[in-house]
Amino acid sequence: MDRHNAFYAQSGGVTAVINASACGVIETARRHADRIGTVYAGRNGIIGALTEELIDTSQESDAAIAALRSTPSGAFGSCRYKLKSLEQNRREYERLIEVFKAHAIRWFFYNGGGDSADTCFKVSQLSASMGYPLQAIHVPKTVDNDLPITDCCPGFGSVAKYVAVSALEASFDVRSMARTSTKVFVLEVMGRHAGWIAAAGGLVEDHGIPVVILFPEIEFDRARFIAKVDALVKQQGYCTVVVSEGCHHPDGTFLAEQGTKDAFGHAQLGGAAPVVAQMVKESLKLKFHWAVADYLQRAARHIASKTDVEQAYALGRRAVELALDGRNAVMPTIERLADAPYRWQIGTADLKDVANVEKFMPREFITADGYGITEACKRYLRPLIQGEDYPKYADGLPVYVTLKNAAVATKLAPFEMR
Amino acid sequence: MDRHNAFYAQSGGVTAVINASACGVIETARRHADRIGTVYAGRNGIIGALTEELIDTSQESDAAIAALRSTPSGAFGSCRYKLKSLEQNRREYERLIEVFKAHAIRWFFYNGGGDSADTCFKVSQLSASMGYPLQAIHVPKTVDNDLPITDCCPGFGSVAKYVAVSALEASFDVRSMARTSTKVFVLEVMGRHAGWIAAAGGLVEDHGIPVVILFPEIEFDRARFIAKVDALVKQQGYCTVVVSEGCHHPDGTFLAEQGTKDAFGHAQLGGAAPVVAQMVKESLKLKFHWAVADYLQRAARHIASKTDVEQAYALGRRAVELALDGRNAVMPTIERLADAPYRWQIGTADLKDVANVEKFMPREFITADGYGITEACKRYLRPLIQGEDYPKYADGLPVYVTLKNAAVATKLAPFEMR
Repeated sequence: MDRHNAFYAQSGGVTAVINASACGVIETARRHADRIGTVYAGRNGIIGALTEELIDTSQESDAAIAALRSTPSGAFGSCRYKLKSLEQNRREYERLIEVFKAHAIRWFFYNGGGDSADTCFKVSQLSASMGYPLQAIHVPKTVDNDLPITDCCPGFGSVAKYVAVSALEASFDVRSMARTSTKVFVLEVMGRHAGWIAAAGGLVEDHGIPVVILFPEIEFDRARFIAKVDALVKQQGYCTVVVSEGCHHPDGTFLAEQGTKDAFGHAQLGGAAPVVAQMVKESLKLKFHWAVADYLQRAARHIASKTDVEQAYALGRRAVELALDGRNAVMPTIERLADAPYRWQIGTADLKDVANVEKFMPREFITADGYGITEACKRYLRPLIQGEDYPKYADGLPVYVTLKNAAVATKLAPFEMR
Repeated sequence: MDRHNAFYAQSGGVTAVINASACGVIETARRHADRIGTVYAGRNGIIGALTEELIDTSQESDAAIAALRSTPSGAFGSCRYKLKSLEQNRREYERLIEVFKAHAIRWFFYNGGGDSADTCFKVSQLSASMGYPLQAIHVPKTVDNDLPITDCCPGFGSVAKYVAVSALEASFDVRSMARTSTKVFVLEVMGRHAGWIAAAGGLVEDHGIPVVILFPEIEFDRARFIAKVDALVKQQGYCTVVVSEGCHHPDGTFLAEQGTKDAFGHAQLGGAAPVVAQMVKESLKLKFHWAVADYLQRAARHIASKTDVEQAYALGRRAVELALDGRNAVMPTIERLADAPYRWQIGTADLKDVANVEKFMPREFITADGYGITEACKRYLRPLIQGEDYPKYADGLPVYVTLKNAAVATKLAPFEMR
């Protein structure tokens, strides 16, 4: 059988477990050395393919590759870069083929979210349209959990665990302080369009915590929100609010867009949490604290979900197996078989059905009043945060690997990014 | 020997390990049942003593008390309330004595920071001035690490570990994204007056991360700060900024005080991180992200330092032993014997030397340029974040205990808080 090289790249916002998928891809490729030669990684995602900045992963020891499994972030660098259509930007696609030809690459593994699935789908079509034999497999990844078909997305389970654990801990803190100090704690989490991450905050309800969730799927209504917080504080003495960065007013403007200016006349920086906290203060005169988790939530490998790590690895492995089976334009998916005890298997989706489709929270996962999650949602979420998968520590800090990322000698003329 | 009851209360901002001290106090008292009767906890700190809202800890099982060791927050409720001097508020002191007499309390354990040490010191003087035999022992606690005499304060090691781990993880994330996206990540941490918590962010430097620390001890200089960030980003492609909430301009105003108004004319909410991020954007046109850890950092029992947990417990235990030895107006302290391998023992400080004294970062712990920590500082910090002490988990979330907190029947007329 022919032996070809592979290309692997990470795309979009990185996660606590995208490197676990990289680990799955590279370890599996190494086990199939009869068919897969070198795995070249793109330095900074697809940009590395365009600029011929390839990383020779064969220079990394087995131990270093194994360590990827417990290292957050994108070990080869990621990028926010979406290829236009073949009609609009033939130049880039021709360059990709040139680079792949020059380095005998016939397997293309792209590890990312919705935009990346679109890029991967376009690349998968090159084989037919440009006459170069290439198989493109997408490895799903997104903390937003908004890819269709797959039951969940690697990266989400860990951020969900981070948010649930953090909300639980901070809520215990507020409960302690509420008599004379803070009564409302506001935690801002990611999720510009879909409320999956915010939903995870709702899991603390089972631990007796009064919690209000502000979803991007539900239009914000200040009066109703304030009434809800007021009722909870009167009843339990305190409450926690988990607000999605994508929470917005009926006219579509985000809560974070305050329309305020700083001393220099520049638009004031966002942050939905301080806006919500300010409303609570104005309307209810309650003492508040707020936090914005930002990158901490998606990078928090120290509290990653074991389920998530295992799925991230398994999907990377299956991507390689699909390629070896001759598949193209597909993405391995998680298929849920049972909630409790949780059972799952890996399925396959066609990229044409994945690209540019966003999966929002179903309305039946959100309580009637719009401020909480239903039992169906909890059944969905619970398995995804199950299990701990601690990294090793040295001197008090996690041992995360930084690869050598040795550059492959270029064979082509430089390519100008436009 | 006489047998008396004890009073224990938690004060000020709670931490990931203040309950470990409570565990040390109560477990040790139970082992000395021949001399210590019931440990009554104040509901919401000293307020519980004034209002005679006492909690009967003997109603809690040994297992529940043991579980305090791995539960963040203040299990009995805390408060922000500082007793005035005896001259200014004799009424409150007389009430305390009344309550203690009514419940046969002769041991007073107060678990808090600087203000609480002051309260505890005042209470310790009551024995002499009001003719009631009472011994008051302070159990140190503060994430701010600003108590004098003791080498470190329980609560600090865990928040330091949280900040170092979070800064490391987020920095890996930014490093991945820097080619096309975020180049500067700003993390705001606690520490209104002292920069100990921010300093912990400096530990990531040993992992190759370019980091800038903004201390409250160093006056903020925008031009120099921007030049520092610019140089690091040019050199390494990205950088992380850890800013203390107490970072301030030369005139004493905090960075978080932007002097801006919202649409309703209200003063704009604080947050030093967004202010710093905005400066980076204005001056360097670099893409940024920012996070405000707030309560998440001090409540993060899931990533507590094992050293910190052990010290918190040991100081609670020693407080009881000091009381049994007949001591009054003292606080057990941590004495460092060696940095590496770390060795420590427990000492004792007189409360008169502790009350109202704040310990700032020594200048020799901060680099000459004011933006980093020195090797001496790292030697100080490293042992304090050493070791992990994971809580148990069930269904993906930590198992934190909520006590019954059974109320003790009141014996006195109500007391009006003024």
